[in-house]
Parts: sequence; structure tokens; C-alpha cells
Amino acid sequence: MTTVNTDPANRIASTPQPPYYAVIFTSVRTGDDRGYRQTAERMMELASRQPGFLGVESARETVGITVSYWRDLSSIKAWKADAHHRTAQETGRKRWYSEYRIRICRVTAEYGFTAT
Amino acid sequence: MTTVNTDPANRIASTPQPPYYAVIFTSVRTGDDRGYRQTAERMMELASRQPGFLGVESARETVGITVSYWRDLSSIKAWKADAHHRTAQETGRKRWYSEYRIRICRVTAEYGFTAT
Repeated sequence: MTTVNTDPANRIASTPQPPYYAVIFTSVRTGDDRGYRQTAERMMELASRQPGFLGVESARETVGITVSYWRDLSSIKAWKADAHHRTAQETGRKRWYSEYRIRICRVTAEYGFTAT
Repeated sequence: MTTVNTDPANRIASTPQPPYYAVIFTSVRTGDDRGYRQTAERMMELASRQPGFLGVESARETVGITVSYWRDLSSIKAWKADAHHRTAQETGRKRWYSEYRIRICRVTAEYGFTAT
């Protein structure tokens, strides 16, 4: 298996010229960690291989925020319906999350800064 | 001065029915903390009083992600141009951030889950 750098906590995603799409996943965890890390890593790896996947960023304090970037809405829909992902979503609702929100967005502009 | 609960690390934002807008601010910090926390808190407080402000969520590990939600693009533009905010942006580039990206988004769908 090739090693994919999918650790979203360590970098800002490199995304193409807009327009493209973003999924903002905001969550609050329960205290139940059983299986969480392995599944989170596995989902990140699977998502990154999906057609249309452009990148991901993630951070957690009390609230966790994961933003994934996608070429189009059909890519987002396909990943939402992926069988492994659906199983993870169900376990998430039963076990890992006390609350979450998912927001589907069209990214219309992007700009930034890099220190020289 | 009234106390506004603007600590975005502690809760998921309550936003209205889409469509509305989101600004995804992703950043990597330098090691220079001088004035950072005070300014960050002050900017959060000022942003939350802006016309069109709907809410904010924030978390930081290596990468920091702050997502602010807005009624329309003109509200985002007005906050970007705010004089206090512009001064903070400039100090951010000089001192606090080694890199950041700002993505302007139209939120077209929202759904979620709350454990019962």
C-alpha cells in the first residue's frame, strides 16, 4: 500500500482555483474513544482516494472542525454514500459524537499569505 | 459593556436555514505570541457585533481553523475592510502567521445530529 500523507492536522490544503466545494464538519465528541482514532484515520485515507477529493484540514479543541475540499457536488454525494463511510457515520452517531453539523459549501474565492 | 459569548472553541454555531456564507480561515502560527491572544479575542468580539454576523467556530492544533458565518457577501466585505480588523491583519502577516488561507464560501445545505 502506498503511503498517503493524509494527516490534516499538519498542513493547509493546497486547493485549485475556485470554484470548488467544501464540506465543513463541526463536531463535539462524547467521552467514548473506542475505535475512534483507527476509524478516523481509515476514513481520511479512503476519502483522499475518492474521485474529486482536493484536500482536507482538521483541528480539534472542545469543538472539532474538519474541512474537506471537493471538485464538485457529485463527488461529495458519492463519498457520503460510500459503504465504509456510512458504517462510520452510524457508529459516530451511536458512540463518538454528542453533536455534529455538516455544511455543504461552494468556495467562490480564495486568497492567502505565506511569509517569505 | 455587555458580555458576549464569543468563545468559538466551545460550541457549534447555530446558523439559520441556508443559503448563507462562510469564511474559512486556515492558518499556521509563528512562535511569536506577542499580543496575539488579546487581539484574537478583541477581533472575535468586534466581528460578532458586525451586521450580518451569524456565528463562528474555531479550533487549533498545528493548523488553526476558524470558520465565521455571515448573512451575505457584503457583510464579509465590510468586516474585511474594518479599520481595527485591517490593523490586526497587518500584524498577523508581520508577526503571528507563517501562512494562512482564506476561502469565501456560499453555504447551500446544512444538516446535523444531536444525541438525545
